[in-house]
Amino acid sequence: MGIKEWVVPQDRIFFDLLEKQAETVVKGADLLVELVEDYTNVKEKVQLMKDIEHEGDEITHEIYEQLNRTFITPLEPEEISRLASALDDILDYIDGTAQQMHSYCIKETDDAMIELAKLIQVSVVEVEGAVKGIRTIKDPKNIEERCIEVNRLENIADGVLGRAIRNLFTTSDAITIIKLKDIYENLELATDKCEDAANILSDIAIRHS
Amino acid sequence: MGIKEWVVPQDRIFFDLLEKQAETVVKGADLLVELVEDYTNVKEKVQLMKDIEHEGDEITHEIYEQLNRTFITPLEPEEISRLASALDDILDYIDGTAQQMHSYCIKETDDAMIELAKLIQVSVVEVEGAVKGIRTIKDPKNIEERCIEVNRLENIADGVLGRAIRNLFTTSDAITIIKLKDIYENLELATDKCEDAANILSDIAIRHS
Amino acid sequence: MGIKEWVVPQDRIFFDLLEKQAETVVKGADLLVELVEDYTNVKEKVQLMKDIEHEGDEITHEIYEQLNRTFITPLEPEEISRLASALDDILDYIDGTAQQMHSYCIKETDDAMIELAKLIQVSVVEVEGAVKGIRTIKDPKNIEERCIEVNRLENIADGVLGRAIRNLFTTSDAITIIKLKDIYENLELATDKCEDAANILSDIAIRHS
Repeated sequence: MGIKEWVVPQDRIFFDLLEKQAETVVKGADLLVELVEDYTNVKEKVQLMKDIEHEGDEITHEIYEQLNRTFITPLEPEEISRLASALDDILDYIDGTAQQMHSYCIKETDDAMIELAKLIQVSVVEVEGAVKGIRTIKDPKNIEERCIEVNRLENIADGVLGRAIRNLFTTSDAITIIKLKDIYENLELATDKCEDAANILSDIAIRHS
Repeated sequence: MGIKEWVVPQDRIFFDLLEKQAETVVKGADLLVELVEDYTNVKEKVQLMKDIEHEGDEITHEIYEQLNRTFITPLEPEEISRLASALDDILDYIDGTAQQMHSYCIKETDDAMIELAKLIQVSVVEVEGAVKGIRTIKDPKNIEERCIEVNRLENIADGVLGRAIRNLFTTSDAITIIKLKDIYENLELATDKCEDAANILSDIAIRHS
Repeated sequence: MGIKEWVVPQDRIFFDLLEKQAETVVKGADLLVELVEDYTNVKEKVQLMKDIEHEGDEITHEIYEQLNRTFITPLEPEEISRLASALDDILDYIDGTAQQMHSYCIKETDDAMIELAKLIQVSVVEVEGAVKGIRTIKDPKNIEERCIEVNRLENIADGVLGRAIRNLFTTSDAITIIKLKDIYENLELATDKCEDAANILSDIAIRHS
């Protein structure tokens, strides 16, 4: 095994990078809401989303690379890599759904998509707040409350999905069903990924407080 | 990092909780078989399933919380958390399929669903037996045999799925295909999750015997 | 916990097994290309694929079993198990898609399938080369370059999938859409799994060079 760096100020870099990644996820969620609420200039917005996703990817890779080179971190390496990967997953689903809307030539968005996108947006803001809270863990209760809120939002999204699917099957156009079912499900999966990130953040808060 | 508790009797709590979780999974599988064999009062049965799933969720969270607070456990923390998460996944797929039957307004169940549900039921009983076996690991061979049996059952389920899908595509109603394909696939995924749990249990048995 | 074996030459076994597994994945990818390019004797080829997949499974299980019994390995146990599991996943998707072609009674393959299968084939050869490189890690830059290439190929596959899906929805036969969409998506997922394996290999190269 090679020589590992042992430099105290480098520890701070992980919090900087994780916060930057959480901000990128929020940026993606904001664009998603904009896309579904004002479904115009779709191609441009979807391309912008892809750029945001690439930005997020680069931050994730930087976190991994730092983890492989740095020996001492304030958190355990596995906690950092699990959190980075969970944040990355949220953005992947946000971007993936936007790409799908374009690939599927969706002509217009609907209430269920808007509702789900807004739930994603509120969830990622809570996740971002919790990520910012782990730098000092001065207020673990605040982190915990944000995580409980993300779990609550995921349950709501689950209900929205159920109703949207049930409603979808009242139509008889199979091709529309195939397209919209994928989009609804992927939007709901984004809130599942928020829940995964929240669970990891809650673990970190309990462990280090 | 905060102060960790170091109390021997607390070690036992993980076996108690894991067994309680395995029992909840069995309860869910029993209800699934009841649902597909007697497809009446669907709404009530599906609601009951959701309650069982919430029960399982609470046990999973209790295990994670105990893991974050307890320093010494009989197994390695990661083994416990992987096993808890695998048991949770089984129940999620069982519940998810039941919810889907309701959301999709499935009018009647069929032989493939009944066969798959019964394979899930037999698998989770084997998993439950293996979970009970890791408390003392007096009989690692028995654990190993149960895990081999779960793998065998998963292979059978895979074959049932293949035939069900092939049969499904002989019909020409795309919407029915969309609905039933999801349900068959999710039932089969539940047996995959049983296999995952069995592989973790088999690892534990080898490591600690 | 039982007695662990501590025998130096045993360390080499992990590299032997991982290389053998990578070769099996390449064998599966070669057969996949053969299947989609010459879509005849489908049943026999699909059965042969299943045999290759079983071969791969056995190597994976052997790796896990060795990991549970051996204390000292050249890599960290978790690195080996993550890599073995990633290689296993690639083969699962290759085999799964072949089985699906048969289950779905696909009558002929198309350009998108051939393109995707060839991208998988080139990717797994890069993965195999990187696996062979970790035995000595004399040339970490070569490993790194192969991993970057796998990432590049995955991006191309993502584009091929997008175009194939978009093209697919210009047809109006819902049942064909259901079938081909699954097959395209699973082929693309195989290249995702190649990327996962490449990321793990890249981590190992950085850590141990």
